Amino acid sequence: MKRITMIVAMKQEAAPLIEQLGLTETSDISPILPCKTFAGQYKNLSINLVINGSDPLLGVENVGTQPATLAAHEALRNFAPDLVINAGTCGAFAEKGSKIGDVYIGERIRFFDRRIPLGGNYEAYGHGNYRCESAIELAEQLGLPTSTVCTGNSLDMSPTDEAILREEEIVNKEMEAAAIAWIASHYKTPLVAIKSVTDLMDSEHSTADEFAANLALASKNLQEEVLRLLDLLALQSDTAAA
Amino acid sequence: MKRITMIVAMKQEAAPLIEQLGLTETSDISPILPCKTFAGQYKNLSINLVINGSDPLLGVENVGTQPATLAAHEALRNFAPDLVINAGTCGAFAEKGSKIGDVYIGERIRFFDRRIPLGGNYEAYGHGNYRCESAIELAEQLGLPTSTVCTGNSLDMSPTDEAILREEEIVNKEMEAAAIAWIASHYKTPLVAIKSVTDLMDSEHSTADEFAANLALASKNLQEEVLRLLDLLALQSDTAAA
Repeated sequence: MKRITMIVAMKQEAAPLIEQLGLTETSDISPILPCKTFAGQYKNLSINLVINGSDPLLGVENVGTQPATLAAHEALRNFAPDLVINAGTCGAFAEKGSKIGDVYIGERIRFFDRRIPLGGNYEAYGHGNYRCESAIELAEQLGLPTSTVCTGNSLDMSPTDEAILREEEIVNKEMEAAAIAWIASHYKTPLVAIKSVTDLMDSEHSTADEFAANLALASKNLQEEVLRLLDLLALQSDTAAA
Repeated sequence: MKRITMIVAMKQEAAPLIEQLGLTETSDISPILPCKTFAGQYKNLSINLVINGSDPLLGVENVGTQPATLAAHEALRNFAPDLVINAGTCGAFAEKGSKIGDVYIGERIRFFDRRIPLGGNYEAYGHGNYRCESAIELAEQLGLPTSTVCTGNSLDMSPTDEAILREEEIVNKEMEAAAIAWIASHYKTPLVAIKSVTDLMDSEHSTADEFAANLALASKNLQEEVLRLLDLLALQSDTAAA
């Protein structure tokens, strides 16, 4: 049976998936840590799902790359999956052709807020450049468009961020994937980042307003495409076993 | 005996400490992960030292908050220390009174590159605000100045970063402490961030040039003050045991 670990930042993003897949909460990770885990089976796939958890004092979801690093490491250490899926929402540029609710698969994942002009390979290290070969094949089979998933710790976009983001052809701006890719690279585990657009960063509305207004539509589309992805993985797993 | 874990980002920053304390390399953390560990004894203190390790493809040191999150979590999980010391170099503002080679102890640690205007407590979560009570007491006893240690993943400073950094009275800009503080808060372990100034961010020289030119002086001063800190901790441990 194929082992899939899904890493989802916020509980709001994870809830529809948990419900649809009928996953139940488990306690696989130390209670000292904020991450929460869920498990279940979908067709012939063994599924674990990890969310970053919430801040014990402030009550908000632990978004960003530090909680994602922790969740990814604990997930890969505990579950040793065949494949990691990072599902979530993102920002995109309307003028590059993106629309609210579009779902992409990352062909490449990078940081956009690690500028390290220290000579040698530090600049390349800072950007990161995680190519997702398995994801590209799956995107083709699903007929989904591919993107460069660009990760940073701010929801807003500074002029410095924007100049870096605009270098990429199709941009999915979000807050976790590159940290997960960095961890997955050490475990040599393939990663599929699947991202649904909640806000258009070149629109007049603020990211926060768009995020709130479009979260329901983006989550619904994300859920549908994640299920199509799992169906495809289940089919491939069947074929491999036959 | 008091158990101290030191977390140091780069091998260049750690080398003088490892040599002076006579620490030897150990293999306490999974070989899958890049972090490297060293151990030894100094007076009545049991010392573990963790560095972030290097990038296997690019050969550079794993600076920044994602590797610091991983190193801090593995260090706290494996060594269960009484106290964590994060020693390293930083940038500071000349016009706020800082000079090259000055050594500070962080009375507060925060992120400066996590802008999350998503309503509720997300903004506060993004900034982080880790107050270091034990560190303040130790700074007083050592006669060291205190600072706000400001953490972000870029070595350079964008205009957006600069405006946020300038809000703080005395600034130590660096790339790891807040991630370590976030992990330490979950383990309820006190943290002392001790930082030595390698570059003045409001000078005409670039951070990268100043970093290279001043690393030797800053590292020497850092090493001296870390030893004074360890001497004080050893004395306190003796007194507590008596």
